[in-house]
Amino acid sequence: MPSRKQLITELGEKKLIKRLLKKSQTILFNNSFYDEKTLQSLSDDAALLNLGNKYLVATTDLLLRSAHFPGEMSYHQMGNKIVTVNVSDLAAMGAKPLGITIAMALPPDLSISDFDQIVEGILQTCKKYEMPLIGGDTNESSELTLCGTGMGLVNKEKVLLKSGAQEGDVVAVTGVLGLAAAGFEILSNESDFKNLDPEMKNQFIKHALEPEAQLEKGLILAGSPGVTSATDITDGLLSELGEIMDSNRANTGIKLFEELIPIPTEFNSIAEKLGKTVLELVLTYGEDFELLITVQKDKYEALENEIGLHKIGYVTSSGLIHMVNKEGKTKLLTPKGYEHFK
Amino acid sequence: MPSRKQLITELGEKKLIKRLLKKSQTILFNNSFYDEKTLQSLSDDAALLNLGNKYLVATTDLLLRSAHFPGEMSYHQMGNKIVTVNVSDLAAMGAKPLGITIAMALPPDLSISDFDQIVEGILQTCKKYEMPLIGGDTNESSELTLCGTGMGLVNKEKVLLKSGAQEGDVVAVTGVLGLAAAGFEILSNESDFKNLDPEMKNQFIKHALEPEAQLEKGLILAGSPGVTSATDITDGLLSELGEIMDSNRANTGIKLFEELIPIPTEFNSIAEKLGKTVLELVLTYGEDFELLITVQKDKYEALENEIGLHKIGYVTSSGLIHMVNKEGKTKLLTPKGYEHFK
Repeated sequence: MPSRKQLITELGEKKLIKRLLKKSQTILFNNSFYDEKTLQSLSDDAALLNLGNKYLVATTDLLLRSAHFPGEMSYHQMGNKIVTVNVSDLAAMGAKPLGITIAMALPPDLSISDFDQIVEGILQTCKKYEMPLIGGDTNESSELTLCGTGMGLVNKEKVLLKSGAQEGDVVAVTGVLGLAAAGFEILSNESDFKNLDPEMKNQFIKHALEPEAQLEKGLILAGSPGVTSATDITDGLLSELGEIMDSNRANTGIKLFEELIPIPTEFNSIAEKLGKTVLELVLTYGEDFELLITVQKDKYEALENEIGLHKIGYVTSSGLIHMVNKEGKTKLLTPKGYEHFK
Repeated sequence: MPSRKQLITELGEKKLIKRLLKKSQTILFNNSFYDEKTLQSLSDDAALLNLGNKYLVATTDLLLRSAHFPGEMSYHQMGNKIVTVNVSDLAAMGAKPLGITIAMALPPDLSISDFDQIVEGILQTCKKYEMPLIGGDTNESSELTLCGTGMGLVNKEKVLLKSGAQEGDVVAVTGVLGLAAAGFEILSNESDFKNLDPEMKNQFIKHALEPEAQLEKGLILAGSPGVTSATDITDGLLSELGEIMDSNRANTGIKLFEELIPIPTEFNSIAEKLGKTVLELVLTYGEDFELLITVQKDKYEALENEIGLHKIGYVTSSGLIHMVNKEGKTKLLTPKGYEHFK
C-alpha cells in the first residue's frame, strides 16, 4: 500500500511560507545588496535590500475573493484592500511607500464598470498613502484574485524589525482591537444583530470592509528612539505575539494584562450573541491592521503621548505568553492565529 | 430594457492593463522618485523609479494553471516559469536582477512534495539569474496561481525602453522564433507527431516547458551604443512590433522580410501537420522570450558579431507593418498577438 502523501493543508500557511523562504536563505548571493538584515527580513513583514544608506523594502500579498472578500465587499473596497494590506506591511517596517504593482486574475464575465470600480479603489488608496500604482498584469480566471507587491524605502538606522525586543520592554498596540472581527461576524450573522445600534454596526462593518493601514504611526515609530520591534496585526494578536517571540531570543516571552487590552465596550453583547468570549474575538481574529510594537520602558510614555498607544503588557524571559486576567490570575496562552490552510 | 453591460472579455487583456495604468498616470506624485521615464515606463515591460543615478525596475506577472501551465508541465517547471517571465521583463529593460517576491494560491490537496518541487524550480531559476527570492505569500485556492514581482537596477543612461526607435534603424531579434509555439502545438496534438524525430521533438517541447530569459544579452544590449528600443517577445512578434510602434511617433512603421525571420527548417512539416502556415506560428504565437530590438544602422553589425542577432527588417515611417515575402511582394500585416481575454 502506498504511503499517504502529506498535503499542504496539514502544514498550514505560515509554515509553508517559512519553508519557502528558509530555503531561499541558502541562495542569497555574496554581494552588497544582501546584508545580515536581508537574511533576517526573510521572516519579517517585508524584505530588505541594501541600497547604501537606505533599504529597499518589498512585500507581496495575494487576496482571493473566496477567502478575503466577503460577499458584502464592493469592488471599490477590494481595490482598497489590496493596497492597504501592502502598505500595512511597509508601515510595520517603518518604510515610506515608493510604489505598488498589482496583478489581477479576473472572471471573464466581470463587467468593465466593475473592473473600473476595482481600479478606482486601488487608485484612491494609492493616493491616500502617496504610493503610485506602477505596474500591473491581468489574466482570466474563475476566481477574482488580486496580487499586490508594495515597495518602499527606509533609512537604515530607522528600520523596524520583529527582532530586537528586550526583557522589560513595554508591549503596545496602536489602536483598539477587534473592530474588524466584530464587523465580519456581524456581516455573516446579520439577522442576529438587527437590534444593534445602526451607527455602531456600521462602524464595525466599515473596519472590516475598508481597513486602514497605520502608515503615519509606523513612520513616526521608525524615527523614534526606543522602539525595539514592530509588526502589523493581520493574523490576530496572539499569532503576531508568537511571531515577535520567534524572531527574538529563545526565552523571549510576553505577559499581557486582560484589563489593558483596548476593546470597545459594546463588544460584550456582540461576543455573547456569537457564543464566543471577547478575548477569543480579539486575540485570534485578525484584520485589524494596527501595529504591535515593543518599546523601551523609559521611552514609552513620551511616545504614547505623541501618537496615542495602548500598553497591553511587557516582554519577559519566560519563553511563553501569559495573561493576567481581570481577577489577577495568570493564565498560559498559546500563539494561534488565523491560518488560511487550517 | 436595461442596456447590456460591456464585459472585460470584450476589451482584451492589453487594453485592460492600459486602462489600469493610464489612470495611474494621473496620481504620480510630484517628488524625485518619479520622473519623465517613470511616466513612460507605465506602458513598458517594467516600471522605472528614480533612485538618483540608477532606476529601480519593477515588473509583475501572474500565471495560472489553466492558462499558462499545460498538463505536461511539471511543478518544477512551473516554478521555473514564474521566475523566467519576470527576468525576461527585466532583461528587456537592461536591468540587473535584485530580487523577486512570489505569492502563491495553491489547491488544498496539493502535496507537500509537489509544493517543494515548485520551490525547487523557483530557487534553481533564481540561482541561475542571481536573483534571490526575497518574499512570499501563500493562500488556498482551487486554481494553482503564481504571482511573481521582479525587481532590478539599471544605470540611468543604459535603460532600454520600447520608445526610441528611429526611421532607418535595424529591427532584430536575439534568437530563433517559434520553438515554443511548435512545442506547445506538439504537446496538444501528440498523436500527430509520432513520426517526428524524437530529439527535435524534445527540443521544441523543452522550449515550451522550460523557457529561458535573455538576461545576458539584455545586459550587453543596455551597455551598447546604438540600441534605440527593446522589448521581450512574450505575446508574439507582431504584437510586440505593435507595442514598439505604439510607444514611438505616430507614423513609426516596420518593414519585415520573410526570408530574414529566423525559423527552424523543421518547421515547415510541423506547420503543415497543424494546417497552419509557418508565419502564423511565428508571428502570432508567443512565449519565445527572445528580445526584439531596434539598433542604429551603423552600430548593428558590430553588435550582431558580439552577441549573435538576427536582422528581420527595419523601421519605417509608414505607421504600418509590412512584410516582403519570399517572392518579393509586399503585404500589409496587422499587429495581433496572444490575448488572454480574446
